[in-house]
Amino acid sequence: MDISKKKARPKAITPRGFRDNFHSYLNKRDKVLEVVKRVYELYGFERLETPAIETVDALGKFLPDINRPNEGVFAWQDENDSWLALRYDLTAPLARAFSQHRNNLQIPYKRYGFGPVWRNEKPGPDRFKEFYQFDADIVGTSNVIADAEMCFIVFDVLNELGFSIGDYSTRISNRKILSGLIQAVKLTDDTVLRDIELVVFRAIDKLDRLGLEGVKSLLGKGRTDNSGDFTEGANLSAGQIDTIISFLTIKNNDPHKTLEEMEDLIGDSTIGQEGLSELRNIAETLLTKGRSDLLFKIDPSVVRGLAYYTGPVFETELATTTKSLGSISGGGRYDNLVSRFTGQKVPSTGVSIGIDRLVSFLHERDSDHEKGVVDVIVTVMDKNLMQHYIKIAADLRENGINTDLYVGNPKDFGKQMKYADMRGASFAIVAGTNEVEEDIVQIKDLKLGRELSANISSNEEWKEQPAQFPVKREVLVKKIIELLRT
Amino acid sequence: MDISKKKARPKAITPRGFRDNFHSYLNKRDKVLEVVKRVYELYGFERLETPAIETVDALGKFLPDINRPNEGVFAWQDENDSWLALRYDLTAPLARAFSQHRNNLQIPYKRYGFGPVWRNEKPGPDRFKEFYQFDADIVGTSNVIADAEMCFIVFDVLNELGFSIGDYSTRISNRKILSGLIQAVKLTDDTVLRDIELVVFRAIDKLDRLGLEGVKSLLGKGRTDNSGDFTEGANLSAGQIDTIISFLTIKNNDPHKTLEEMEDLIGDSTIGQEGLSELRNIAETLLTKGRSDLLFKIDPSVVRGLAYYTGPVFETELATTTKSLGSISGGGRYDNLVSRFTGQKVPSTGVSIGIDRLVSFLHERDSDHEKGVVDVIVTVMDKNLMQHYIKIAADLRENGINTDLYVGNPKDFGKQMKYADMRGASFAIVAGTNEVEEDIVQIKDLKLGRELSANISSNEEWKEQPAQFPVKREVLVKKIIELLRT
Repeated sequence: MDISKKKARPKAITPRGFRDNFHSYLNKRDKVLEVVKRVYELYGFERLETPAIETVDALGKFLPDINRPNEGVFAWQDENDSWLALRYDLTAPLARAFSQHRNNLQIPYKRYGFGPVWRNEKPGPDRFKEFYQFDADIVGTSNVIADAEMCFIVFDVLNELGFSIGDYSTRISNRKILSGLIQAVKLTDDTVLRDIELVVFRAIDKLDRLGLEGVKSLLGKGRTDNSGDFTEGANLSAGQIDTIISFLTIKNNDPHKTLEEMEDLIGDSTIGQEGLSELRNIAETLLTKGRSDLLFKIDPSVVRGLAYYTGPVFETELATTTKSLGSISGGGRYDNLVSRFTGQKVPSTGVSIGIDRLVSFLHERDSDHEKGVVDVIVTVMDKNLMQHYIKIAADLRENGINTDLYVGNPKDFGKQMKYADMRGASFAIVAGTNEVEEDIVQIKDLKLGRELSANISSNEEWKEQPAQFPVKREVLVKKIIELLRT
Repeated sequence: MDISKKKARPKAITPRGFRDNFHSYLNKRDKVLEVVKRVYELYGFERLETPAIETVDALGKFLPDINRPNEGVFAWQDENDSWLALRYDLTAPLARAFSQHRNNLQIPYKRYGFGPVWRNEKPGPDRFKEFYQFDADIVGTSNVIADAEMCFIVFDVLNELGFSIGDYSTRISNRKILSGLIQAVKLTDDTVLRDIELVVFRAIDKLDRLGLEGVKSLLGKGRTDNSGDFTEGANLSAGQIDTIISFLTIKNNDPHKTLEEMEDLIGDSTIGQEGLSELRNIAETLLTKGRSDLLFKIDPSVVRGLAYYTGPVFETELATTTKSLGSISGGGRYDNLVSRFTGQKVPSTGVSIGIDRLVSFLHERDSDHEKGVVDVIVTVMDKNLMQHYIKIAADLRENGINTDLYVGNPKDFGKQMKYADMRGASFAIVAGTNEVEEDIVQIKDLKLGRELSANISSNEEWKEQPAQFPVKREVLVKKIIELLRT
């Protein structure tokens, strides 16, 4: 069955925007996931895992780049012509799952979930089409304490990961205030209000990336990007744009003052006032946390890209003394996402931590302490002694020692030693007929060998060094355990 | 932004063949994954994670049900009309990844990987379109010791999961022997040999499900299933079918005798002899393990469904005294999968453990010992004391106690207690204005409360019981830690 001859060779390459992850990165990711999980459980959340695939109907269309041809998701038609898609976040599936299982769930339903999500968007050097999110959500409460807890939980996760107060900061705002502002600048053709709102929200969400001028274009006639693609704008008047820009640039370290300045701009809009009151409540709750001045600020330019947010929104940025990681988590309230399914109002809030950026940073920061998988490699001196080597490997493994039995072609012993070295093993076990007759094995200390070979030039000298020594077969396991401890 | 009014409500339902998983199931799965990971690392494997999405070209077409219209995979065309698909196993992506990164990998490359895979096949009560696999592979060796290690590793995993010798058994065979047999029965029209081989292999692979008569039909003219679907057969003659059936029904507890009987049927076919010799070597290695008579048997009917296997194949069945779980792992050698990409022969072998079936079983077996996420629930007696409750929750969490602060509507206190009960919390903290003034909190022992309320009828009696008692605020954390320990 020689498959290779059948046709032209496939390319050995991940699709564009995807990548493979290797051991030490994944080890680090496991540690981060473990920490986040522990913190989320401390807050009383329980786990829910939804499938990777949902119906397109259930997911809804809430992605920022909804206007692009493929709408940012990976979707296809099944054999009955219904559309299926890979989840683009963990929130839309949660709303589906809650609605499906609501009769068996306690309300408020506090769940956490993590895993990959997929977006069919333009990839970049640090931007992949498959990425890991870790979400916490509370479904079924309008209490803004729930929103405040979403911020607390991120602080606690970052502390547990070894970041310090001052390394991170959460910016909070509320979409209702922005809706109020839009009313105040008199975009009051009711039928199109929601659509204009979304265009305005999305323009503002690009502030980080495009700067104030970019946002101005998107609030006005539109904007042509570097690749020549044109994005239609909100077509607001210069005066309307000015008011919105003044609002966005309100910056004050005192949250109360920021709230006052926001209030001045939105006037008496009911929805705006509602948003202000919610924001005030959350701010007050956050202020109870020690050094809260460092932990958060009210920032009217926070809006978040996803269309389903209805009220409080927040995002956390991370910048250590050595590196800025940008936004590593975001969330907000989505009071209408469940009602899409049930028709009943089920107010909800949630937060999502972007795991990959955190892991990359920690992977870099802590890479010195990484250790290979393999402790010991059992080499093959003589093919006829294979059963002997298998038994040695089994004994070591039974005692919790990660042991690689060399299963490549054993002919070239030098190649085996090179392999042992490449895998970062600490010790190699060597036993030929002589050793078996004497009931001993040779232990090669590969770490010491590596250090010595860095300093010693001739082969003669090398042999005199104690990097290899015999032990009785029956004490091998005990000896290796001892050696690994030191 | 009332999304719900825009159009007809989407259905709150997972697509057919998919499911949501909840906390205690996932907890159990984590434990199983942890065990498998630990054992695989003991054997010196290191982790590799490939993306969910690959090009259809890279995945190749190796699924058993290749003849169905959608070919068993979830696939779609991207914006450049190239075909992408969700991985249907972890082996095809490994071959792609190894080929892509081979210059940076040690050979033999020992990797493990786990995660969901997706198959667009008919779902059943215990058969989902998304399921978890945990694979170990050794790429770049033709040494059959590597295949034997694949069997050992599964034994060790099952032992670590608490199964006993006798609960499981591995059946092994070798596809080359079957190829030899097919040569022996003179299907020697060389051009179609490979295609006929695959049809024969797949017919045999259905032995468990369809029985001998079903396999006979598939080796002959074909078979109509219960739903009326017709599967074309291999169109062998009655004599040819008889020889194959005699081969498949060779059963002998002594592996050496089984090997002899197999040899009698395949005659002097070179490939058949090669397969026999490999099988003999693996059997001899497995025989070195204690009680090997219970651990494995040679069974000529093992063939495995995937088209990429070229030599040794094996699968492990699990049957405890209470339940048969069927096949929970399978694998084999795939010597041509990497050469599809590189043109160079890179012999390889691997094993895959089906995680879901194991987890379901253990979840059922160990469900008595399950504990809810929440230790303590902090109730809300008085909305104005919210900051007080937040502080209590923060103190408990800082001390490692899983604490749920009630964030639903606090008006109905009875509802809060019901919620606490439903979440399986051990204690509830209650504090109103009086308690705050006296600097105390009430601890309700919910577990004791549940036991008492099962035995006591009147409200009066209930109140006299010590299921609720006050403690000083400053010793609350200490007291709860004490109580949780007992």
